[in-house]
Amino acid sequence: MKTTLHYVQDHLSLLRFLGKWFLLILPVALLSGTTSAFFLWALDEVTQLRWQHGWLLYGLPLIGVLILWLYQKGGKNAERGNNLLIDEIHQPGGGVPGRMAPLVLLTSLLTHLFGGSAGREGTAVQMGGSIAGVLGRQLRLSEADLRILLMSGIAAGFGAIFGTPLAGAVFALEVLTIGKLRYQALIPCLMASILGDITCAAWGIHHIHYQVAFSHTAIPTFSVPNGWLLTKVALAGALFGLAALVFSELTHGLQRLYKTYLPSTYLRPIIGGVLLIGLVWLVGTRDYLGLGVVSQQPNGISILNAFHSGGITPWSWFWKLLFTAITLSSGFKGGEVTPLFFIGACLGNLLAGWFNAPVDLFAALGFIAIFAGASNTPLASTLMGLELFGSDNLIFFAIACFVAYFFSGHTSIYSAQRLGVTKS
Amino acid sequence: MKTTLHYVQDHLSLLRFLGKWFLLILPVALLSGTTSAFFLWALDEVTQLRWQHGWLLYGLPLIGVLILWLYQKGGKNAERGNNLLIDEIHQPGGGVPGRMAPLVLLTSLLTHLFGGSAGREGTAVQMGGSIAGVLGRQLRLSEADLRILLMSGIAAGFGAIFGTPLAGAVFALEVLTIGKLRYQALIPCLMASILGDITCAAWGIHHIHYQVAFSHTAIPTFSVPNGWLLTKVALAGALFGLAALVFSELTHGLQRLYKTYLPSTYLRPIIGGVLLIGLVWLVGTRDYLGLGVVSQQPNGISILNAFHSGGITPWSWFWKLLFTAITLSSGFKGGEVTPLFFIGACLGNLLAGWFNAPVDLFAALGFIAIFAGASNTPLASTLMGLELFGSDNLIFFAIACFVAYFFSGHTSIYSAQRLGVTKS
Repeated sequence: MKTTLHYVQDHLSLLRFLGKWFLLILPVALLSGTTSAFFLWALDEVTQLRWQHGWLLYGLPLIGVLILWLYQKGGKNAERGNNLLIDEIHQPGGGVPGRMAPLVLLTSLLTHLFGGSAGREGTAVQMGGSIAGVLGRQLRLSEADLRILLMSGIAAGFGAIFGTPLAGAVFALEVLTIGKLRYQALIPCLMASILGDITCAAWGIHHIHYQVAFSHTAIPTFSVPNGWLLTKVALAGALFGLAALVFSELTHGLQRLYKTYLPSTYLRPIIGGVLLIGLVWLVGTRDYLGLGVVSQQPNGISILNAFHSGGITPWSWFWKLLFTAITLSSGFKGGEVTPLFFIGACLGNLLAGWFNAPVDLFAALGFIAIFAGASNTPLASTLMGLELFGSDNLIFFAIACFVAYFFSGHTSIYSAQRLGVTKS
Repeated sequence: MKTTLHYVQDHLSLLRFLGKWFLLILPVALLSGTTSAFFLWALDEVTQLRWQHGWLLYGLPLIGVLILWLYQKGGKNAERGNNLLIDEIHQPGGGVPGRMAPLVLLTSLLTHLFGGSAGREGTAVQMGGSIAGVLGRQLRLSEADLRILLMSGIAAGFGAIFGTPLAGAVFALEVLTIGKLRYQALIPCLMASILGDITCAAWGIHHIHYQVAFSHTAIPTFSVPNGWLLTKVALAGALFGLAALVFSELTHGLQRLYKTYLPSTYLRPIIGGVLLIGLVWLVGTRDYLGLGVVSQQPNGISILNAFHSGGITPWSWFWKLLFTAITLSSGFKGGEVTPLFFIGACLGNLLAGWFNAPVDLFAALGFIAIFAGASNTPLASTLMGLELFGSDNLIFFAIACFVAYFFSGHTSIYSAQRLGVTKS
């Protein structure tokens, strides 16, 4: 039987754990939140510049060469990005280099300035991870502690960049292994993502608010409309999962094609850049370049406009998928998640028409579910839905994310992700 | 490299998995939702009866003897309740007996009719698990499949009894092992809890709505009020976790005391019943008997009244804790969760006064966080908060539940729960 002394000892050890991690995480979260805030501000600036100076797009192939050169000259293993972080958490090896942060920041801004179709979470997560890696090395942390600190860096970056601290914390736990979650880093990751988000907000950064007017709460649980809507949401979830699979496999497939048929690496960004310029000419719009949260023209194609009917075209999801797969497989930087939101929201908009379902709800479902499928993080994606769109459609968010996770099969945008538990 | 054929094979296997589990889960969810609906209806009836006939309380010691006799005569290992379910999922052994369902239903209703302080989720979860166990045996499922079906039974019962399908699904995954989550049963559990909830609603069951008017969304992320409130919520979370620890250890400690000093098992419910009668006399109210969601008098002490200031007394949390620990350790049936909601909401109400914080918010935090700490299910508890109270205070729910989980240490209301990952 436990004595009071045991409880006191147990809880002193819990308090030591808390105190230690608060002190370790504070600098990581402050720096990570600050760099994320700077990145978001700069991203806005370069996007404005790109809109004002249309000719910048034609520099994309050369800028791709510059990005590649920067990583080859000074990057060590930093080019592996998120995959390096995941590997180092599973099995600490050479460490996460400090140069990863400035490199990914600079190259992501260059990608966006010249019109690559990329995201922002890769940048934020790699900056957070890089800061954590440097601090961990300076303090000569043990392997176990370094793991937790790296995860906290991911959480801080993710929480700050999207303004979604809970999704950030759970993402850092969930992204490592398909089908498994361990709680060691639960509290450190939550502290990191909350502090990262607060720090980012302290610099005056605001996140876009998406409006989903549809509310499930008005429909009785046992009713035909609810049964139908549940079925439609599950079907849509399966299609979001398949779209995630197509995106992951297309990106990896293009990378393999480059490697097999174009061993000269410098041809890779040149071809990628030229392909993107060709696609712009083919599709007749530049709305698929860059981040895509908002478009240059108010009625252009963007994530925001995917939330109302008529805001986008039936093939918008496919074009964004193609633009982004080419951009990222050619070595441009930024990340996959915001483009996935774009693809998912547009696909949701399309499916809402097919299924005679609410457009705003289905755009929101696609937004989070394709991310759930592509990154195999169904819980973090559901929580992100709650943080961005509120809880009125909670159960639909969960169904769409869980089903998309299921139907993306054993594919992933992160090739370093381990398979913990098979899906069927 | 994967060929198209591989993807088709992969996805055919996913579809087979889905189809198989839909067919297996449908009867479990329908039966589980129906028995839960009957139980909730009957619980209301016996509570009304107890309120009308005050003398019933004096039958409590004898009814305790009857409950014990029923389990000893016909219960096999069913008396182990939730712990048996957890053990059978970890390591299929003798199986979950079919008699567990009628036994726990009858004895829970007797407990509530005669004034024991107990919950309802134990009953629902054991009925769901028992139904799943019988079906699994009839169909001669493999051990791996039986595990998933038992988890689905838990999810269906939990989702139906509280009207919180997402919390039900995640609870079934999270409750098995402290600090670890595996996703094999993710989709089956979600199907089961949604279908269980719909079935329960089909029988006309309504769940009480709690109102939390306070909304975090109005406070800027980077502001002094937000910083203070985050700190207060984290502190309260730690205290909720300690209260969960006290509850678990007191209940287990009383069980050990009985075993050591009163080897005659029939003395156990008699002493327990007499103690409860004495406590009613001592405290001067019967509000701590039964479920406690609402009280006999509109202004009595209840979960609902803990959501506004002045609704309860400063020691209400302690009395409910004592009443419940005595009830459950003496062999009465029903479950721990609703009494935990009561204890947590009352403690939250008290702490709101101490911390000068919103009463409704802190009652809601206590409601879910003490449950998170006592059952080591921080994600399910956070999701339950969202399903019951909306997402306006999402990040506070997560902080309170995660911190309470952390501070309950390595204690649990479920002695069969495995320790997967230590908390510090």
